[in-house]
Amino acid sequence: MKTILIVGIGSGNPEHLTMQAINALNRADVLFIPDKGADKADLAALRRDIVARYVTNRASRMVPYSVPRRDAANPDYGAGVDAWHAALAEIFRSLLAEVPDNGAGAFLVWGDPGLYDSTIRIVERLRADHAVEIIPGISAIQALTAAHGIALNRIGEPVHITTGRKLGAVTDDTIVMLDGQTAFLNADPNLDIFWGAYLGTPDEITVAGRLGDVRDKIVATRKAAREQHGWIMDTYLLRKRD
Amino acid sequence: MKTILIVGIGSGNPEHLTMQAINALNRADVLFIPDKGADKADLAALRRDIVARYVTNRASRMVPYSVPRRDAANPDYGAGVDAWHAALAEIFRSLLAEVPDNGAGAFLVWGDPGLYDSTIRIVERLRADHAVEIIPGISAIQALTAAHGIALNRIGEPVHITTGRKLGAVTDDTIVMLDGQTAFLNADPNLDIFWGAYLGTPDEITVAGRLGDVRDKIVATRKAAREQHGWIMDTYLLRKRD
Repeated sequence: MKTILIVGIGSGNPEHLTMQAINALNRADVLFIPDKGADKADLAALRRDIVARYVTNRASRMVPYSVPRRDAANPDYGAGVDAWHAALAEIFRSLLAEVPDNGAGAFLVWGDPGLYDSTIRIVERLRADHAVEIIPGISAIQALTAAHGIALNRIGEPVHITTGRKLGAVTDDTIVMLDGQTAFLNADPNLDIFWGAYLGTPDEITVAGRLGDVRDKIVATRKAAREQHGWIMDTYLLRKRD
Repeated sequence: MKTILIVGIGSGNPEHLTMQAINALNRADVLFIPDKGADKADLAALRRDIVARYVTNRASRMVPYSVPRRDAANPDYGAGVDAWHAALAEIFRSLLAEVPDNGAGAFLVWGDPGLYDSTIRIVERLRADHAVEIIPGISAIQALTAAHGIALNRIGEPVHITTGRKLGAVTDDTIVMLDGQTAFLNADPNLDIFWGAYLGTPDEITVAGRLGDVRDKIVATRKAAREQHGWIMDTYLLRKRD
């Protein structure tokens, strides 16, 4: 029986690692390190920095693997994701072969493994005889609200979490993730926005204010940062003004 | 200038502490330890366990304080919360007096300070000349999904977070927190529920299944556990069946 550890490593700040995550990484015989291509080299470097800082188990080794790109051009979003997960499951199967019997292999997942991450679902596809342990991690949502010094919810009020693709009219306080299309441009300009990119890292940028007043600044900031870094990860909260 | 550190300490498992939280606790001159009364003595003990494990700064000291009860009988929920926060702000003001000039005082907050916790808002009321730093922590939501081995969201789909008081018809996947009224009894029995109590602790209990099939079991489990411990903290996810 092999154990798959799905370890949340937080959102950019190596100090987001929990003691539980550090202990899990040190229990692993093999650490799987994804390589998403040159444009996200910063992220691969951050993963390696985390391993260098916190993994003291000298018997463990890192196994890099290439992550195929999802076919974003597929007009059927679900089918595109399904094909991508199937390809990743085959890669995971070969990675598992690197784990010794009764040993453990760890996936280092950005943020929290439960929130807009595919690792849990891809591991479910393997249907092999292995144990799975999930270690929660600090999500970009938590890094966002901490950076802005605000609570996510208003007193006793609900919160909605959605994607740029699914953003509709905002009634409840709404977190938007995975928004490559700057969907906030179509939202009510009288909302407040709390935006952040590269959260938790030394490159963290935040902008907050009335959407109509700051949206152009966010678009320009986003564009310049993306050109500088070669990639961007950002998220934001939309909220009706008090 | 004094610094107030609002430190998320995770959801019951001392190993939920992040390196950032541990470093923040060790920067504090004073650690504020709330006492919520005998029925939550387990929680006070857990806070003290965290300090004993991770605080190596021998110059720091713990300052206990009593937390007044919110008047739950107040028919105006908002007014009841407001009066409670005002009382806590006065207590916080006297706690801040315990912090030396240019020093730091830390509040140890369950879960994440941004999610259904009042500390950020109460500190805002002080309007004193101090700096505030917020350190994110693992929330009960993350502990819940990790315990059940599931992702919070379905692929590309939204998630709703609400309270027992505000739970309505469930369309999106819905997390319910702060539900003292077992609001799930009024929800569609054909939903799936993923329920958990004392998440992250050695006493963790989880129940999952079709709501109509498991709701009586959850009610009975909840009642017995509450009698045994003298208190309960639970949360759950409601989701339409695939």
